[in-house]
Amino acid sequence: MASQDHTSHRAQGDELRRFIRQILHRVGLPASDADTVGSLMAEADLQGSDGHGVIRLPQYVQRIESGGINRHPDIRVVQERAAMAVVDGDNGMGHLVVSRAVRLAIDKAREAGVAWVGTRHSNHAGPASLYARMPLAHDMIGLYFAVGNANHLPPWGGMDMLLSTNPIAAGIPAGDEPPVVLDMATTVAAYGKVKAKAKRGEPMPEGWMVDRQGRPLTDPNRAHEGFLMPIGGHKGYGLALIVGLLAGTLQGAAMGREVVDFNADHVTPTNTGQAILVIDLAAFGGAAPFKSAVDTLVRDIRGGERLPGVERIWLPGEQSHGKREAYEREGAPLPDALLQDLDRLAERLGVEPLRRAQPEPVGA
Amino acid sequence: MASQDHTSHRAQGDELRRFIRQILHRVGLPASDADTVGSLMAEADLQGSDGHGVIRLPQYVQRIESGGINRHPDIRVVQERAAMAVVDGDNGMGHLVVSRAVRLAIDKAREAGVAWVGTRHSNHAGPASLYARMPLAHDMIGLYFAVGNANHLPPWGGMDMLLSTNPIAAGIPAGDEPPVVLDMATTVAAYGKVKAKAKRGEPMPEGWMVDRQGRPLTDPNRAHEGFLMPIGGHKGYGLALIVGLLAGTLQGAAMGREVVDFNADHVTPTNTGQAILVIDLAAFGGAAPFKSAVDTLVRDIRGGERLPGVERIWLPGEQSHGKREAYEREGAPLPDALLQDLDRLAERLGVEPLRRAQPEPVGA
Repeated sequence: MASQDHTSHRAQGDELRRFIRQILHRVGLPASDADTVGSLMAEADLQGSDGHGVIRLPQYVQRIESGGINRHPDIRVVQERAAMAVVDGDNGMGHLVVSRAVRLAIDKAREAGVAWVGTRHSNHAGPASLYARMPLAHDMIGLYFAVGNANHLPPWGGMDMLLSTNPIAAGIPAGDEPPVVLDMATTVAAYGKVKAKAKRGEPMPEGWMVDRQGRPLTDPNRAHEGFLMPIGGHKGYGLALIVGLLAGTLQGAAMGREVVDFNADHVTPTNTGQAILVIDLAAFGGAAPFKSAVDTLVRDIRGGERLPGVERIWLPGEQSHGKREAYEREGAPLPDALLQDLDRLAERLGVEPLRRAQPEPVGA
Repeated sequence: MASQDHTSHRAQGDELRRFIRQILHRVGLPASDADTVGSLMAEADLQGSDGHGVIRLPQYVQRIESGGINRHPDIRVVQERAAMAVVDGDNGMGHLVVSRAVRLAIDKAREAGVAWVGTRHSNHAGPASLYARMPLAHDMIGLYFAVGNANHLPPWGGMDMLLSTNPIAAGIPAGDEPPVVLDMATTVAAYGKVKAKAKRGEPMPEGWMVDRQGRPLTDPNRAHEGFLMPIGGHKGYGLALIVGLLAGTLQGAAMGREVVDFNADHVTPTNTGQAILVIDLAAFGGAAPFKSAVDTLVRDIRGGERLPGVERIWLPGEQSHGKREAYEREGAPLPDALLQDLDRLAERLGVEPLRRAQPEPVGA
């Protein structure tokens, strides 16, 4: 297990938060902003969203140091009605902009029943599920849409990569059961999974990508020669487009040709757009009957007959829920290569390195 | 062409509306309700949604005559805030309930910026895109979710069909370009497409369905031995579940085991749920800049480089838009078998049969 996923160390949540906060403060973020971002990034690692947590820290630091992020943004509401607002992030860290947007949507939904708050001039903000889950504590539903920060998806039948893997996330309160939390890219595989296959020297399954002749592309080292495939063919293309229009265009954020590839360009403001829809169960007859109905449905699904060879039927978000519980006790697993990157970053910036637990014995 | 799709006659929109209205009035719907339903059903045929138009009339009539539909429903708002409402359809025709919900959502969005209106005790209401398109005339975005009226989809890894093909539809205003209109089932193929394959004696492609061993099922006559497959595997399962929770459970409508198979059962009230989210562009900085940005994006997508063998890149809804323009002039094509069914229905109910144009010469 340990050797398979290149993980031999774990970091506790408190230590992850401390480390990220100090690094971000050292490169110029105000202490309270560094604290907010550190908490959200650590939360990503602690729920198993390991492509969106501390692994992004070196890239964020590079963008901040290059002037591609505004360290002291004036994050403000630029359009507002009873059930909507647009938050201009002034090119601040995406985590600050989106968490502000979600808090505002929760406040508005409490009055209006439902509220939509979108962002412009925001930035990459980590896993979509972080934000879709925030309304859960208030017995509210969250639906989250975002424009991805690099275009890897062409329209169906095309080759110009005008679309990103624009994710959809939903957080649905349950009663005794874990909440139902969906977090999905509109492509068969997210680009991060392609990179992970390359790192492990494994081929991709057919269906993840095609080359410029439309043939299956399975060598992850040739990923730059092809495109990601949308789920359900033209359907996933349609979904990615609609999500981009709602999360980007509606708020005046980047979409299509305007999207900046933030993996390659560390300076140009991304004008990232995100949007959250919050639905207050109190307005729909109260949280209790809804949550009880969700519990029943969850148990019907989990307890149903299974296809041969299937050990368990999972609900969306159930595996992350299990990881969250385990990682809060044991710490989040971090690959050695990442730990080395983080150590170098800490040394360069004069911050105490990330403390981690000793390696577990292989096979533990 | 004519022989291939079993279509040799066309019916004009006015005549379709007249025919459906008279039939529904004859079986007991008040004239104005019959008129509303007839217009919406004809609109479905006129945009090429031929699985959801007049083809459903015999089934609707059977349900009305069996007492499975309330001919004189008291459709009313049972929960309401500034940006939301729940409409109880009192088991009336779904078209009446949903069009009422959409009108209310448009009115509310004009004030609050955004509004969500859901239904309970509604019924099958035709193609999702009909309702997602309604806000377009007001320079508003429509997002529509519905619980399908028969469960054909098990959870991922399971065999109990607890989910339907729960559709998502979106209507996005454009400027000079046609609006972007998505209307998709969350399964690879809608169940109607399986039935169409059976009718034509053609096999299904692999990927549409699997049997109870998890093996590909390609014989459409064996459809009852298997299940539809969700788009993107577990992702489509997650989407179908979330759509059902939002369109059904949230409003107190049927979901999971509660869903009535309205193809097999013509009496039990279905308690169908639907939901529309309407977003007023005026609240987000005005319609003009948004529509101009959509036009640019549409042209970038359409004008992009194509994969070998691809003649044209389509935008979602563009093909329906073309059909709508053609069918409004030429009438909607109707298969012979359907026309015979409709003639029998007309004769039994003493209504003047549907007038249609003479067959076109084969190959015309």
